[in-house]
Amino acid sequence: MALAATDQTTTTSIDFGPAAALSCRECGARYDLGPIFACVECFGPLEVAYEFGAVTREQIAAGPANVWRYRALLPVPENVLDRPNMAPGWTKLVKADRLARELGVRALHVKDDSGNPTHSFKDRVVAMAVEAARNFGFHTLSCSSTGNLAGAVTAAAARAGLDACVFIPADLENAKIVMASVYGGRLVGIEGNYDEVNRFCSELIGDPMGDRWGFVNVNLRPYYAEGSKTLAYEIAEQLGWRLPDQIVIPIASGSQLTKIDKGFRELIKLGLVEDKPYRIFGAQAAGCAPVAAAFRAGHDVIRPVKPDTIAKSLAIGNPADGPYVLDIARRTGGAVEDVTDEEIVDSIHLLARTEGIFAETAGGVVIGVLRKLLREGKLDPDAETVVLNTGDGLKTLDAVSAKARPTAIIKPSLDSFRAALGG
Amino acid sequence: MALAATDQTTTTSIDFGPAAALSCRECGARYDLGPIFACVECFGPLEVAYEFGAVTREQIAAGPANVWRYRALLPVPENVLDRPNMAPGWTKLVKADRLARELGVRALHVKDDSGNPTHSFKDRVVAMAVEAARNFGFHTLSCSSTGNLAGAVTAAAARAGLDACVFIPADLENAKIVMASVYGGRLVGIEGNYDEVNRFCSELIGDPMGDRWGFVNVNLRPYYAEGSKTLAYEIAEQLGWRLPDQIVIPIASGSQLTKIDKGFRELIKLGLVEDKPYRIFGAQAAGCAPVAAAFRAGHDVIRPVKPDTIAKSLAIGNPADGPYVLDIARRTGGAVEDVTDEEIVDSIHLLARTEGIFAETAGGVVIGVLRKLLREGKLDPDAETVVLNTGDGLKTLDAVSAKARPTAIIKPSLDSFRAALGG
Repeated sequence: MALAATDQTTTTSIDFGPAAALSCRECGARYDLGPIFACVECFGPLEVAYEFGAVTREQIAAGPANVWRYRALLPVPENVLDRPNMAPGWTKLVKADRLARELGVRALHVKDDSGNPTHSFKDRVVAMAVEAARNFGFHTLSCSSTGNLAGAVTAAAARAGLDACVFIPADLENAKIVMASVYGGRLVGIEGNYDEVNRFCSELIGDPMGDRWGFVNVNLRPYYAEGSKTLAYEIAEQLGWRLPDQIVIPIASGSQLTKIDKGFRELIKLGLVEDKPYRIFGAQAAGCAPVAAAFRAGHDVIRPVKPDTIAKSLAIGNPADGPYVLDIARRTGGAVEDVTDEEIVDSIHLLARTEGIFAETAGGVVIGVLRKLLREGKLDPDAETVVLNTGDGLKTLDAVSAKARPTAIIKPSLDSFRAALGG
Repeated sequence: MALAATDQTTTTSIDFGPAAALSCRECGARYDLGPIFACVECFGPLEVAYEFGAVTREQIAAGPANVWRYRALLPVPENVLDRPNMAPGWTKLVKADRLARELGVRALHVKDDSGNPTHSFKDRVVAMAVEAARNFGFHTLSCSSTGNLAGAVTAAAARAGLDACVFIPADLENAKIVMASVYGGRLVGIEGNYDEVNRFCSELIGDPMGDRWGFVNVNLRPYYAEGSKTLAYEIAEQLGWRLPDQIVIPIASGSQLTKIDKGFRELIKLGLVEDKPYRIFGAQAAGCAPVAAAFRAGHDVIRPVKPDTIAKSLAIGNPADGPYVLDIARRTGGAVEDVTDEEIVDSIHLLARTEGIFAETAGGVVIGVLRKLLREGKLDPDAETVVLNTGDGLKTLDAVSAKARPTAIIKPSLDSFRAALGG
């Protein structure tokens, strides 16, 4: 298998649906849709700009039970439905009445993205990247990953018939390593943390070895990141076309949080939901909390940290979208908070015990922050609240293995049972 | 926590929707709906008998994206939608074109039940058992389990606010042990295989300690088992209200296979699909293949075996519904086959590599048997075929851990990458 797809120069006809251009988030400069991610004027990040047609609730509701029901709002062609892809999304919005009661909250929902095909929200963003790769004629998908993304990319590549070569820190959880390699793409472990993996990929993309590869979170990032908007659309539609009052979102790079805000604003602009205030809260692990630290200190810039937390899927020490997260949290009247590893584990158990949802450590971070915000009076217990579980507990078993053990081991007899459980 | 729910004698008003009675599968004797499972006349298994009203495709399509869209065909009350439950089902039917091409099959679909809340088909059957437990006023849910069921029961109990006490063989995969205990119910490991766990539960149900417990696969079994019918309904609806020509189904107790057949026949009878022949194939692991052995030998009875296979979720040495499976396979022109552990692992990799679906060992059994049937000319490569993946690879990591490793471990430098991958 050649590392560089040098023979793949055919340009298929480019069709990004309603996406009209890329525009710089900093200076507003516009670019043709292409595999680029930074503004040549000011080095600001590029994002997709749209020219939306008329979009109605009915039209969306008539679509499939996956992210493609929102294809009129995404950088994908109309015929995306007919192509082999993972068709993620339309995950459950669980009305969490038992958890709400335990926390003293009036109306609480968990958006449970563990229901995605590879059991994390990453399937949403990767689905957009696959379509972009097809548009640009890239036959190899790549990424730097803290684990979930690597599995999502290699699975999506397998389904789509693309090659994959993905990069992870070598010390990841076993479940994530197996999941990233079982789909048959190349998986490369890097001796270093996620930020080092990321830097390596930035070098590779400028090298002939990585030429004409689609790095989903580098040169395809503007398209990829749009996938997180579908979380906003689904939450609003599942609430009955209404925005929540408050939402708690985990922060890794910060991209997901900024795109959920973008999604809410688009829905308002298109008249699909009523305009109303909503407050966005960010959640980090104390062992990697550069955005929470900047928020508390009132800073506009993020001071990078060296991550040390069990929440590996959030362990990005230098989050690219950190400054935008600060803006959004401040503009909407939200906040950014962090919780310790101990609180993360405790919160995973709390969510499992009350709602039957087994969350990844990132989900524990969100529930932990929800509790902390309530405790500190920063979150209104009477307002409608949505929290995100972005991954699956099966991928971070080690976090709970110590406490999640059998109550007893017995012989197959009533006497043994009686003795063990005091019946 | 008391082991026996002795204070829970309140009988709520019983509402099983269209279910009219229990009837004996052997002698046809009828019984009122109750927490019973065997005929007092002939000891035959009881199953739910219905009086269906008019049911239309439109009425079903207007329902939610879960099993409750078929509530008019299930032993549940109309208001099941309003109760806290896991709302499983409506999992993807994946058009497996790349796998089909590799195997030389014309039209192949994978019904991927790893998309259920606890990532196995067990969420379907447990959802029915929870409603039955509510009907009978049972406040503790219990089961014997090879792992998947224990997780499904404890999760569903947590969501529904019921107690749980579940029993598993003590030597299960770690992921299944964690998953069965994280939801906060009691998990008891038994030193013995599944058949011994099962026998223990039969004793417990007659003992005051287990009095008024809902054992989902014992005294609630008639209701529980009906949940598997939803696989038949979904496959037919997702094919555009059409039955497949051929279907390959894994065999543990055999109940799932018999209920899929029942579901297909109900759809024909209700005029929801066109009447047409379909062939049902059963799949077992060679290390626990009593039904395949009986099928090959032309026997009507099953000779129990001591299981020895990596496919632990199918490791039932004395499958209760084995004789019915033989009937159905013979009546429909199908077959029952088995594959070795090596073929199971190989088939898990094949499915992952071609379709981006990471199956549990049981899914490997089904894909392995699909290949074997094709090789032996027992399955028509030109007929529309559906195969089931009933669980998630994340729960049986050990099966693939040896081969699913990183391609290389490198330092974060282009030189190191070039050296490792020969770029």
